[in-house]
Amino acid sequence: MLLTGTGRLAPAGLSPWALVVRDGRIGWIGAPRDAPADDERVDLGGALVTPGLVDSHTHPVFAGDRSDEAASRLEGQPYTDGGILRTVRATRAADDASLEALLEARLRSALAAGTTTVECKSGYGLSLDEELRHLRIIERVAERLPLRIIPTFLGAHAVPPEHAGMAEYAAHVADDMIPAVASAGLASFVDVFADAGFFDAGATERIGRAATAAGLGLRLHADQLELTGAAQLGVGLGAASVDHLEQLDAEGVAALAGSSTVATLLPGPATVLRDRMPPARALLDAGATVALASDANAGTFGAFGAMPLVIGLGATRLGMTVTEALVAAARGGARALRRPDLGVLEVGGAADLVAWDADHEGAFALRLGNVRPLRTWIGGVEIDASGRTMDA
Amino acid sequence: MLLTGTGRLAPAGLSPWALVVRDGRIGWIGAPRDAPADDERVDLGGALVTPGLVDSHTHPVFAGDRSDEAASRLEGQPYTDGGILRTVRATRAADDASLEALLEARLRSALAAGTTTVECKSGYGLSLDEELRHLRIIERVAERLPLRIIPTFLGAHAVPPEHAGMAEYAAHVADDMIPAVASAGLASFVDVFADAGFFDAGATERIGRAATAAGLGLRLHADQLELTGAAQLGVGLGAASVDHLEQLDAEGVAALAGSSTVATLLPGPATVLRDRMPPARALLDAGATVALASDANAGTFGAFGAMPLVIGLGATRLGMTVTEALVAAARGGARALRRPDLGVLEVGGAADLVAWDADHEGAFALRLGNVRPLRTWIGGVEIDASGRTMDA
Repeated sequence: MLLTGTGRLAPAGLSPWALVVRDGRIGWIGAPRDAPADDERVDLGGALVTPGLVDSHTHPVFAGDRSDEAASRLEGQPYTDGGILRTVRATRAADDASLEALLEARLRSALAAGTTTVECKSGYGLSLDEELRHLRIIERVAERLPLRIIPTFLGAHAVPPEHAGMAEYAAHVADDMIPAVASAGLASFVDVFADAGFFDAGATERIGRAATAAGLGLRLHADQLELTGAAQLGVGLGAASVDHLEQLDAEGVAALAGSSTVATLLPGPATVLRDRMPPARALLDAGATVALASDANAGTFGAFGAMPLVIGLGATRLGMTVTEALVAAARGGARALRRPDLGVLEVGGAADLVAWDADHEGAFALRLGNVRPLRTWIGGVEIDASGRTMDA
Repeated sequence: MLLTGTGRLAPAGLSPWALVVRDGRIGWIGAPRDAPADDERVDLGGALVTPGLVDSHTHPVFAGDRSDEAASRLEGQPYTDGGILRTVRATRAADDASLEALLEARLRSALAAGTTTVECKSGYGLSLDEELRHLRIIERVAERLPLRIIPTFLGAHAVPPEHAGMAEYAAHVADDMIPAVASAGLASFVDVFADAGFFDAGATERIGRAATAAGLGLRLHADQLELTGAAQLGVGLGAASVDHLEQLDAEGVAALAGSSTVATLLPGPATVLRDRMPPARALLDAGATVALASDANAGTFGAFGAMPLVIGLGATRLGMTVTEALVAAARGGARALRRPDLGVLEVGGAADLVAWDADHEGAFALRLGNVRPLRTWIGGVEIDASGRTMDA
């Protein structure tokens, strides 16, 4: 397939450009006049074409609705029995079929909005059986959707009421749950909510080392609620990504810039929580790799399919240029998932492509995310509006 | 029709509630157990039902795309030949059929997102012939869509290059254009871009008095770029609404609180322009009537159909509660258009209703506007997804 599009993400900012898809990957990319002949031609005219978006931080396996809680919080009256554990209760009570249907609908919304790779965390189970159940639901739904799905085990999301305390539960996560998850082949990463009131440095380090020992990658929720130094801890543990970073200081910026750990920024929940924004400009200027992700979840940002809005928020609220925001939502997310073959318009990269109802990247800012896919390909195969492959 | 729904916008915060539609208006509203019998029953279960949203500030008649300009501005490199006059050139060059198609698509997007009343400004013509052409296009498109459309003449949007200067063009607007627009019956309101570098107090006053003399209402773009006192000027001229107000000070807040002029806030363009937010909390606390509107336009907020996002921005970036934001996007917008029968769940109010894919108002904040209509009625008539009435 020979496909022509426009947009500034091709090598050297070339636009318009053409690319050839071979075996699901980009086999050639360059100026349209230099393109090799191909029987199958897709000419998208002036349409903006980007890599499929990579949402590297989501919590999509849950039941229940906490809209009432969000409204109360904004009225200055937080729920006393709200938060993660409220969703854990509702999710434990939901049967497999309900959770599968909810997860599938959320992922279809993401795909319909131009996301072709989604990281999916467990973490609303908080017991070995429940966490394994949620990861198996992710596995089953992934089998019937064309999206690329990367599962993450987030047993250390909160301390469940059955456990005596944080240190004791963290030991259970590290010693019992991680080996079980790894041996079942149900996750690529382990995540820890390494923040004030959740998991402290000692617990995070114990869980992180268990992840590494089990052959799983590590990612952390870091420096969202308070500046705890979790970003530097993540760098020290070789985390693929540290996420949130609303409270990150200059030392944290420098530590990330000198590392291979990606700084994943989540302007959605920061906006919903009326929080400060993470230091995106400082991270970019220092040379850190920045990802933008949705953090779609049960309690602080409930929008699945919101990556275009997240790009718009990046370009407005985070002080990024539109191109920086778009790169962060594609290549950045892919780096955060240790998948450098995704999210790029490069020879060898996966042919995950989205043609948008826009002629210029600036539409993501001007329309604050109201930009929709016209056509979507994953691994060179076109996906129709219902999320099926066109030849299926 | 007897319709039952939930949500906190019924009298005394009653929820769930029932209402009876008679002749396109709400004939009764109260507790479901007290509802009178009716042959036609619509039970929406636990779905949130609100008045149809009222978008009281849009600029939908234009051709061309300024996404590139938005991207450059965010990179710190504004276009020298950009701005309103760039859109005026593109719009003057577009034929009627093109402009009608663009306008219709934009209004259908608004309707599909739960907006049932839209104010539509001219203002990308800036000559008598062009402004009349654009207002006639609004009139023609309004005839074939079920939305309620309120046309506004915005000849004083910018000074066109054919004119010697601001004062001379303002005199033309006041003395020639307004009488022609009024005698053709093409507008309900006159609007003036009463801000630094556009139309000064003298010009605004001249145009405002001409509007009143012609029997048209007045609304102003005020205190967006600089604090000029345009809000107070609008109060003095009896304007229905003063819009933007990003730079409004305490004196302006007090003037609006003591008046019948609505304070219309537009967090969309304020976000896209990385501008400060208007003082919503101060206005509400002082007792001013506040409206939220989209300001969907060619250059600073290009999202048509974004009222749910605007509510989400109101509840997060403007410090409003979710209920305040929703009321501002319905009743507030209606007041700004001098249509107190719209945007309310009250006996006598129009039966413009939207059932949402949410169970609680808080979803507008939690999902940052990713809330979609399930069913929509205008004047008691259900509208299908394509924007047609169900019985047409």
